[in-house]
Amino acid sequence: AVSSRKPSRKLNSLERRYELPGDDEMSMVDSFTKAHNEYSRIATKSTSLLLNELWTKKSIPDDGWSEHSIELFLQWIASHDSNNRIDMAPLGAGEREGRVASSMVRRLHCGLTHGIGRSGNLCEVQPKALGSSMLNCLANEFALHALKTLGLHSVKGALVIPLCTGMTMMMCMAHWRKMRPRARYVIWSRVDQKSCFKAILAAGFEPIVVDPLREGDSLLTDVPEIRRMLEKNADEVLCVITTTSAFAPRAPDDIVAVGTLCSAHSVPHLVNNAYGLQSAECTRRILECRASGGRLDAFVQSLDKNFQIPVGGALVAFFKQSHAAAFAQFYPGRASCVPARDFVLTLLSQGTRGLQAEFDRQRRLFERMRRKLRTFAEEIGETVYEVEENLISLAMTLCTIPASKQTLFGAVLFSRGITGARVVPSSTKKTSVEGHEFVNFGSHSTDQHAGYLTVACGVGMREDELEELFARLVSTYGRFLRKNVGRDVRIGGRSVNFESDEDEETLADPY
Amino acid sequence: AVSSRKPSRKLNSLERRYELPGDDEMSMVDSFTKAHNEYSRIATKSTSLLLNELWTKKSIPDDGWSEHSIELFLQWIASHDSNNRIDMAPLGAGEREGRVASSMVRRLHCGLTHGIGRSGNLCEVQPKALGSSMLNCLANEFALHALKTLGLHSVKGALVIPLCTGMTMMMCMAHWRKMRPRARYVIWSRVDQKSCFKAILAAGFEPIVVDPLREGDSLLTDVPEIRRMLEKNADEVLCVITTTSAFAPRAPDDIVAVGTLCSAHSVPHLVNNAYGLQSAECTRRILECRASGGRLDAFVQSLDKNFQIPVGGALVAFFKQSHAAAFAQFYPGRASCVPARDFVLTLLSQGTRGLQAEFDRQRRLFERMRRKLRTFAEEIGETVYEVEENLISLAMTLCTIPASKQTLFGAVLFSRGITGARVVPSSTKKTSVEGHEFVNFGSHSTDQHAGYLTVACGVGMREDELEELFARLVSTYGRFLRKNVGRDVRIGGRSVNFESDEDEETLADPY
Amino acid sequence: AVSSRKPSRKLNSLERRYELPGDDEMSMVDSFTKAHNEYSRIATKSTSLLLNELWTKKSIPDDGWSEHSIELFLQWIASHDSNNRIDMAPLGAGEREGRVASSMVRRLHCGLTHGIGRSGNLCEVQPKALGSSMLNCLANEFALHALKTLGLHSVKGALVIPLCTGMTMMMCMAHWRKMRPRARYVIWSRVDQKSCFKAILAAGFEPIVVDPLREGDSLLTDVPEIRRMLEKNADEVLCVITTTSAFAPRAPDDIVAVGTLCSAHSVPHLVNNAYGLQSAECTRRILECRASGGRLDAFVQSLDKNFQIPVGGALVAFFKQSHAAAFAQFYPGRASCVPARDFVLTLLSQGTRGLQAEFDRQRRLFERMRRKLRTFAEEIGETVYEVEENLISLAMTLCTIPASKQTLFGAVLFSRGITGARVVPSSTKKTSVEGHEFVNFGSHSTDQHAGYLTVACGVGMREDELEELFARLVSTYGRFLRKNVGRDVRIGGRSVNFESDEDEETLADPY
Amino acid sequence: AVSSRKPSRKLNSLERRYELPGDDEMSMVDSFTKAHNEYSRIATKSTSLLLNELWTKKSIPDDGWSEHSIELFLQWIASHDSNNRIDMAPLGAGEREGRVASSMVRRLHCGLTHGIGRSGNLCEVQPKALGSSMLNCLANEFALHALKTLGLHSVKGALVIPLCTGMTMMMCMAHWRKMRPRARYVIWSRVDQKSCFKAILAAGFEPIVVDPLREGDSLLTDVPEIRRMLEKNADEVLCVITTTSAFAPRAPDDIVAVGTLCSAHSVPHLVNNAYGLQSAECTRRILECRASGGRLDAFVQSLDKNFQIPVGGALVAFFKQSHAAAFAQFYPGRASCVPARDFVLTLLSQGTRGLQAEFDRQRRLFERMRRKLRTFAEEIGETVYEVEENLISLAMTLCTIPASKQTLFGAVLFSRGITGARVVPSSTKKTSVEGHEFVNFGSHSTDQHAGYLTVACGVGMREDELEELFARLVSTYGRFLRKNVGRDVRIGGRSVNFESDEDEETLADPY
Repeated sequence: AVSSRKPSRKLNSLERRYELPGDDEMSMVDSFTKAHNEYSRIATKSTSLLLNELWTKKSIPDDGWSEHSIELFLQWIASHDSNNRIDMAPLGAGEREGRVASSMVRRLHCGLTHGIGRSGNLCEVQPKALGSSMLNCLANEFALHALKTLGLHSVKGALVIPLCTGMTMMMCMAHWRKMRPRARYVIWSRVDQKSCFKAILAAGFEPIVVDPLREGDSLLTDVPEIRRMLEKNADEVLCVITTTSAFAPRAPDDIVAVGTLCSAHSVPHLVNNAYGLQSAECTRRILECRASGGRLDAFVQSLDKNFQIPVGGALVAFFKQSHAAAFAQFYPGRASCVPARDFVLTLLSQGTRGLQAEFDRQRRLFERMRRKLRTFAEEIGETVYEVEENLISLAMTLCTIPASKQTLFGAVLFSRGITGARVVPSSTKKTSVEGHEFVNFGSHSTDQHAGYLTVACGVGMREDELEELFARLVSTYGRFLRKNVGRDVRIGGRSVNFESDEDEETLADPY
Repeated sequence: AVSSRKPSRKLNSLERRYELPGDDEMSMVDSFTKAHNEYSRIATKSTSLLLNELWTKKSIPDDGWSEHSIELFLQWIASHDSNNRIDMAPLGAGEREGRVASSMVRRLHCGLTHGIGRSGNLCEVQPKALGSSMLNCLANEFALHALKTLGLHSVKGALVIPLCTGMTMMMCMAHWRKMRPRARYVIWSRVDQKSCFKAILAAGFEPIVVDPLREGDSLLTDVPEIRRMLEKNADEVLCVITTTSAFAPRAPDDIVAVGTLCSAHSVPHLVNNAYGLQSAECTRRILECRASGGRLDAFVQSLDKNFQIPVGGALVAFFKQSHAAAFAQFYPGRASCVPARDFVLTLLSQGTRGLQAEFDRQRRLFERMRRKLRTFAEEIGETVYEVEENLISLAMTLCTIPASKQTLFGAVLFSRGITGARVVPSSTKKTSVEGHEFVNFGSHSTDQHAGYLTVACGVGMREDELEELFARLVSTYGRFLRKNVGRDVRIGGRSVNFESDEDEETLADPY
Repeated sequence: AVSSRKPSRKLNSLERRYELPGDDEMSMVDSFTKAHNEYSRIATKSTSLLLNELWTKKSIPDDGWSEHSIELFLQWIASHDSNNRIDMAPLGAGEREGRVASSMVRRLHCGLTHGIGRSGNLCEVQPKALGSSMLNCLANEFALHALKTLGLHSVKGALVIPLCTGMTMMMCMAHWRKMRPRARYVIWSRVDQKSCFKAILAAGFEPIVVDPLREGDSLLTDVPEIRRMLEKNADEVLCVITTTSAFAPRAPDDIVAVGTLCSAHSVPHLVNNAYGLQSAECTRRILECRASGGRLDAFVQSLDKNFQIPVGGALVAFFKQSHAAAFAQFYPGRASCVPARDFVLTLLSQGTRGLQAEFDRQRRLFERMRRKLRTFAEEIGETVYEVEENLISLAMTLCTIPASKQTLFGAVLFSRGITGARVVPSSTKKTSVEGHEFVNFGSHSTDQHAGYLTVACGVGMREDELEELFARLVSTYGRFLRKNVGRDVRIGGRSVNFESDEDEETLADPY
Repeated sequence: AVSSRKPSRKLNSLERRYELPGDDEMSMVDSFTKAHNEYSRIATKSTSLLLNELWTKKSIPDDGWSEHSIELFLQWIASHDSNNRIDMAPLGAGEREGRVASSMVRRLHCGLTHGIGRSGNLCEVQPKALGSSMLNCLANEFALHALKTLGLHSVKGALVIPLCTGMTMMMCMAHWRKMRPRARYVIWSRVDQKSCFKAILAAGFEPIVVDPLREGDSLLTDVPEIRRMLEKNADEVLCVITTTSAFAPRAPDDIVAVGTLCSAHSVPHLVNNAYGLQSAECTRRILECRASGGRLDAFVQSLDKNFQIPVGGALVAFFKQSHAAAFAQFYPGRASCVPARDFVLTLLSQGTRGLQAEFDRQRRLFERMRRKLRTFAEEIGETVYEVEENLISLAMTLCTIPASKQTLFGAVLFSRGITGARVVPSSTKKTSVEGHEFVNFGSHSTDQHAGYLTVACGVGMREDELEELFARLVSTYGRFLRKNVGRDVRIGGRSVNFESDEDEETLADPY
C-alpha cells in the first residue's frame, strides 16, 4: 500500500510541474524559485554524474560529447587550478604562479596556465595546479585507450608528450643512454625525412645509415645489412630505429625481422610510427613484432598527423607500464599542457565511435584514391608503383615530363592549392644534413629513377576533397603538358581545356 | 588659386558627410553604399597601415594595442596559412595538412595549426604555413626587442623556444656536444631545483656539483672550486652552468668571475637566468660578464616566469646572431607555435611601455615586501636574511617554530591559499635525484641551519595581493604558534585573533 | 617573343619559390621577408576580394564560408565602428559612445556595441557605427535574398526586426493606425497562441475573434464569417490577421480567400507566417494570394523558428519596397544588432545551398514522421488526423488514454526529454487572456474532441532525432498504459518492456 | 581527549598532503586519484557555494567576480536549458526548440538560445529553458538592487526590457491605454531627440508639445503651460512625459512640479530618465517627486547609456511591484535574453563596489570637464552656459565662429575622432518629424541663439580620454579659426600650431 502511494505522489507532482509555469498568482521570484528548486537539482546532478563517470572510468566515452558539455568540463577542470580558485583569492608568493598578463592569452588557455610536470616528472601532480594535472592524467589514460581502440591491445603504457615526433625520439634515445654506457651508434633504416635523423645527432649518437633495397617497385628494409651491423658491434649500438609510415615507394620497415634481430643482440628497438596509426598494416606489424617475441621498446607517433590536433605533441607507447613511468620521470622540467588538452578535447568530442569512423574513412578513401590514380596514370601513359604494404601514400611515375621540368610541375601543383603532393626527381647530387651526406635525398635511396609524384590520403581527408584533388590534378597536368612539353593530352575522353584566361591569371599569382 | 579650391572642396564634402546620413530621399541601400564608400576606405587603410608598420618594423609597439586590433592581427596572420585560404579550398595531399578534428580546438589555436619549423630548423618558413612562420619570426624579433628594452643591449640573437627552461638548457648542451667531442662533464654551481640538474643528465653528461659558500647570510658561488675543477681537466668539461635567479639565501652566481674562468679555459658558459630578467642585478651581471671580456655563450629564461604567459616556452639569448641561427638549425623537427603566439599577443597588448611598467612595479613591490617582512620578523623575534643581491626573493628565519613543526607550518600556509611560499627545514638526510645524492636538498647547500621561510615577489604581483599576503601570513603564524607551540604572539600592537570558528573550518578543508 | 619570355620568367620565379625556403644562406629575417613579400600579397588580395564581392553583391554566397572567413568578416565589419578605430583613439563626448564595461560582454558582441538605427529609423546609417550599419544593411538584403531563395520571388522588401513575431505584428498594426484613423477592430482568425492575440491588444485594438470551422479532421478558416464582419463595418477594421503556421489539426488559413475579401473592402491584410517559411504550402498560399490580386500588406516570420538562430528577431516582408522603408522609419529609436548579426553569420555559414538543404531535409523528414506516426497510431488503435495542408505538424487522437490522465501523459513525455510535443485535452472551461475569454483554449476552437497529441517536424530536426523521438514515444506510451491504464500493449510485434529499473528512476527525477 | 585527537589527525593529513606529490612509489594514476580525492571535493564545494549563494540572495555581489567564475556561472546557467541537457539528448518535437544552425552563433549566445518570456509574459518561466528564465529573473533582481545602490531606495519593481528606451516608453503608454479609454493626447515637455517623440506616435497618441522656457542660460520646464493643458482636458490625456537627462542648455525637467500636477489631475506621469542614473540631480528629483506625494508611474532608462552594455535594452522602474508584474504580463511574446545576460555579466564583473566607482568617477570627471571647458571658453572669448542642474553635459557659445561655418566646425571635430560632441546652430527652419513640425530642431526650443557646442561626460569616460579630448578640441579650434575665419588664437599661453603637414593629411581623410 505504501509503495503504491509513492508513485502516485510523484505523478501528481509531475503533472503539476508540467502545468505550473502558467500559475498567475505567484510573484515572479516565487515562481522562479519554485521552478528552480524542482528542476535545477536534476541539471546539477546530471553534470556531476557526467564528470564523475569520466573520472571513475578515465576512458574515452563511446559517443562524443556536445560542445556545451565539453566547455563545462574545461571550466570545471580549470576550477581546480589554484589561480582560478573561487572561494579564496590565490596569493602567489613564488616565482611561477600561473599569472597571465594578457586576458586574450588567458582565454586561449582556458585558464590552464601552470603547464604539466613537477620536479622533472611529467606525470607528477602539481598541488597548485590540480586541474592541469588531472587533464594530463586523463590525456595519458585516453592515449592508452585510443591505442587499444585502434587495435593495439598489448600496449601497456602511453604518454602524451608535449614535443613533436623528432624530439620525442631524441628523448627516448637520451633516456636509454644510461642503460647502455658503451653505446655510440644508432642504426637507422634510411627514410628521407630530416627530423628523425637529426634526433639521432641531437641525442649525441653517430647514425649508421642503412639504405633500403628495391624489390619490385617497393623500397624495403635491408635486414641483412642491419644484421651485419649488429653482429659487428652490438654493444656500441644504442638502438635500431625503424619507420613504419613513409612516402611510397618506401614501404613500412620490416619491424618483425628487425625486432627479432634486436632481441637476439639485446639491443633496443625504437619505431618511428609517425603517422602509422592510420595504417592497418603498420599497426599489424607492431603487434606481430611483439607477439613473435621480437624486441620493440617504444614506438612514437605524431598527435597532429594521427589525431588531427595542431602541431605540438607526440604519443610515445610502451609494452610495459614501468617504461612509461621511467620515461616520464626522466624529463627535465615542466611543459605545456596544450597538447594534452587538445588531445582530450578532441577525443571527448569524437568518442571512440567518432575516432574509429575517422580511421575507417581513411581506409575507404585510400582505396578510392588508389583506383583513381591508377586510372589517371593509365590514361596519360604513366604507372602507379606497386607498394602493397603502404596504405597511406601512392607514387606515380612522371616519365611524360622531362626530368628538367619535374620540379616546376611540383611548383605548379602547389600554386593550384595542392599541398603535400611532392614531385621527387632523381639526382646524383649529394645533400648534406648536419655534415652527413646523402645521395638522391628525397628518394629514400641512392637508387636512380625517372622521377615520380607522391600523394597521400591522410586521416581527415574528405570525399569531396579527394574528388577536387583529382579534378585539379588532371587539369593542371593537361595544361602543364601543353605549355611546357608542347603536347596535348586527352583525359576522361576529352582534351583538357587549358585555354581559359584563368590560367594566365593563376600563374601570375601562383602561391 | 588651385590649391585654395582643393581644400574648400574637401571641406564641403566633409560638411555634407557630417550631415549626410539623415538624407531621407535615398533608398536604404543607396545611403549605405554612399556612406560605405566614403568611410570604409579609411577603416581599411588604417588597418593595413597598422599591420604593415608592424611587419616593416618587426618591433614591439610603444603603446599596447586594443583587443580588437589584436584579434584582427591574429585573423590576418591565420589567413596566411594554407588551411585558412579564402580564395581557394586547400587540398591536402600530404601526411600533415593542419587538419583539426575539433572545432573547439581549432578556435583555441585561432586556426594556426601547422606549428613552426621545417626540416628540423625552427626558423625556417613553411610554405604552406606562412602565417605561423610569420608569427614565429615576429616572436623572435620581439624577443630581441624585449631584451633590449630591459637593458640587455649587447644581446644579438634571441629565440623563443617551445620548450621550458630545463629542456632548453639541455638542448644547449646537446648542441655544443659536437664542438667538444672529448667533453664528459658539466660543472654546476649547485642550486636546489631539479630541472636544470636533470637537464645535464638528459644531455648525457656527468654533473660536477659545486656547493655554494656561505658568506654572511648569503650562499655565494664557490669560484675557487670551479677554478680547480676547470684546471683539472677543462677539455673534458662541456660547459659551466651558473644560475642568476634562485631563492634566498642563495644569491645570484658570480657570473663575472665564472665568465673570466671560462674564457681563460675556453670552456662554454651557460647561464640559467630562469626568472632573472625581472632582477636588475641579474641583468647587470650578464652585461658585465660580457663587457669585461668574460665568456657567456647563452643564457636561458622562462617565458612564463618573466612575461606572464602560460607555461610552455623559454627564451634563449646569444651574443652572436650566428649562434641563434645555429641553435635553431639543430632542433630535430617541428614544434608548437603556441608559446610564440602567446608571447607576441602579450607584448602587443602591453607595448614596451606596459612591459616596462610591469618590471618597474616588481621592483617597487619587492622593496615594500622587504620592509614589511623585516617589520614582521622583528615583531615575532625572527630575522630576514641579508642577501642584498637577491632582488626577487627573501628568506626569514623560523627559530620560533620547532624544527619538527616547520613542515606543518608550510602546509598550513598552503592551505590558506598562499602558494609559492616555502618552508625549508634543515636536514642531514640524503635526497637522491636520478641516482645522484644531495645532502640537505632544498637548502642549496649541505650547510645546516635552523629552518627558514622564503617568499618571492614575482613580476605580476599586485599591490593588494602583497597586502593580503601579509595579512594572511600574520594571522596564520599567530594561530599556528598558539595551537602548535602553545604560545601567544602580539603583532602590530594587538594579539592575533585565532579564536574564530573559521579556523577549524579551514583546517578541515585545507586545500 | 616578348610574350613567350614573360611566362618563362614567371615560371622560373615559381620554381624558385617552391624550393626557396630551404635556402640556408639567408638570415632568418631575410628569408621571412622574402617569403612574406611573395606570398602575403595573395592572402591580402584574396581577403579583399572576398569582402568586396560580398559588398558589391550584397547577397548570400552560394556555398557557405569557412569559420575562419566568417571570423575575419566580423573583425573587419567591427573595424568600421568608431569605438574600434585603429588609427586614432576614439574620444566619446556624447551620452552614448558604445563603451562596454565588461570585456566578456564586449567579446560576445564582437565589438559591435552601437546597435542599429538612428533618429528612429531602423535603416539609417550611424556615422559613428558604420560597421553595425553595414551589418544591418546586409541583413536586410540577405533577408530578401533568402525569401527569394525559398520561392517568394515577388517579395520586394524585407526587414530583419530585432523584435519577436508578436511585437513585430504589433508594430505593423501600430504603423497602419495613421492610415486608418477610424479603425477600432482587428479581425482575427483564431489560433490558440497568445502572442499574436496580445499584439492586437497592445496595439490598442479590439479583436474580433473568428473561430475556425471543422471540415473533416481539419480546422479551416471561417471565410463567410470574416466576410460578414468586413461587410458590417470595414471602415472600423484596421486589418484582418490570418495565420499560416499552426499546430494540427489547425490548417493554414485560407489566405487567398481572405486576401480577396480584404482587397474588395480595402482593408489591410496581415499574415502571421511564424514558422511558415519551412512549409511549401504556406509559401504557396502567400504567393497565390498576391498573384490572384488579393491583398496582403505584410507577412511576419520568426527568425529563430525558420533560420535556427537564437530567439530575438523576426523578418517582416512586403510586396513594395516603399512599405519596408516606411516601416523602418516608423520605429521609435535604436535597437540591438544581435539578430541582424546572427542572421548574417548563419547565412554566411550555410550559403544558399546549405539553407536550401535545411528546408529540403524538413520536407523529407516530415514525410517520414507522418508515415511513422500513422504506423504507430494504427498499432495502438489511434488515428492521425488528416490535415493535408499542414506540412509541419501532426495530431494523433488519444482515445486509449482517459481524458483525466491525458495531461499527465504530456507531463511524462516532457520528463522523458521530449519537448514541444503537446497533449491537448478537450475542455469546456473558459480561459481568460487579458480579459478576453476563450472556451477550450489550446484547441483553436470551442469544438469539443477526445484529446490529441501533437508533434512537429521543425527545420533543424535530424534523422537520428526523429528515430529517437519515436523510440521514446513508443516506450513511454507503453509504460504509461500499463501503469496508469492497467493495460499492456504490443508495438512493433513485441510488448513494450517497462519493467526496467530505469523506469522508477526516471519518474523520480522527471525533469 | 577525543576532540584533541581529531585536529591532530587533520594536521597529519595536512602535512602529508603538502609533501605528498613527490611520492615516487605510486603509479601515476594512483597518485592522481589520491590527490584528486583530497583536493577536488573542495573545488567542487566552493563552486556550489558561490552559485548557491547567488541564487539565495539574488543580489549583485559586493566585489566583482573573476572572469573564470563568471564563465563557470554562464556554463552552469546554460546547463539548465533543455537543449544543453547533459544526461539525455533533447528531442525537440515542437516548432521552436532552441536549435542553432551556426556553431559560431551558438557560442556568441553561450548556448542560451530560447530567449525569455512565455505566453506573452516576459517574466514567466519556460520549462524547457529554465536557465534562460533564471538569467532573466536574476537580471530583474539585479536591476532593483542596482537602482537601490544608486540611491533610489523607494523603487519597488524593475524590469530589464529587451527594447531600447523609445520602444519601452511606447510600451508603457500602450500598456496604460486600457486604463484610460478616453485618452487621445500625451503632453510632452519638448526635448529634441526623436525617439521619445516617435514613441508617442507609435503608441497611437497625439503629442501636445510644450516648449521649455529659457531662464538665465537654462531651458526649464514650462510648468504653467502643462498645468493649462491638463486643466483643459485631463481626461483625454494619457500621460505627461518629462525628461531628466538632456543636452545642455536644456535642464532636467521639473519632475516634482509635474508630479504634483499629475497627482492633482489623476493623470499618469512617465519619466524619460534615459541616461539620468549617472546624475545625482536626476535621481534626487525622481525621489523627491515621489516623497512629496507627486505622481510618477514609471521611469525608463537605457541599459547601454547607464551601465555600459551594448545597445539593446532598457530598464523600466516602478514604485509598486504589481506595476512591474502587470507590465511584464502585457508584453506580446517572447524576447531576446541578450540584454538580461549582458546586464548580469556586467554587474557580476563589477560588483556593487565597481558599479559605484564608475558613477563616482563620472561625477569627478564632470567637475573637471566643467573647469577645463570654462578655462578654454574664457581664453577664446566664449562662455559656458550656466545650467547648474545638468550634471552630465555642458554647452559653450560659438560666437567666434560665423553661423555659416558652425556646421562645418562640427564636421571637423567629428573628423578628428571626437564623437558625440555636437555643434547646434540656430535656425528658423522647420523640421518635420512624422508630419509634426518643429522650429529650430536640435535646440529644444524655438528660441533663437548664436550657436553653441555641447559635450557630455558620460559614465565610462576615462581621465586620459578627457585630457585628449581637450587637446584635440584646442588644436582643432585653433586650426579651424585660422583656416576658415582667418584669425589666429592663443590658447594656454601659446599660439596653436596649425602648420603641420598632418593638418592637410587629416582633412584629406576626414572620417
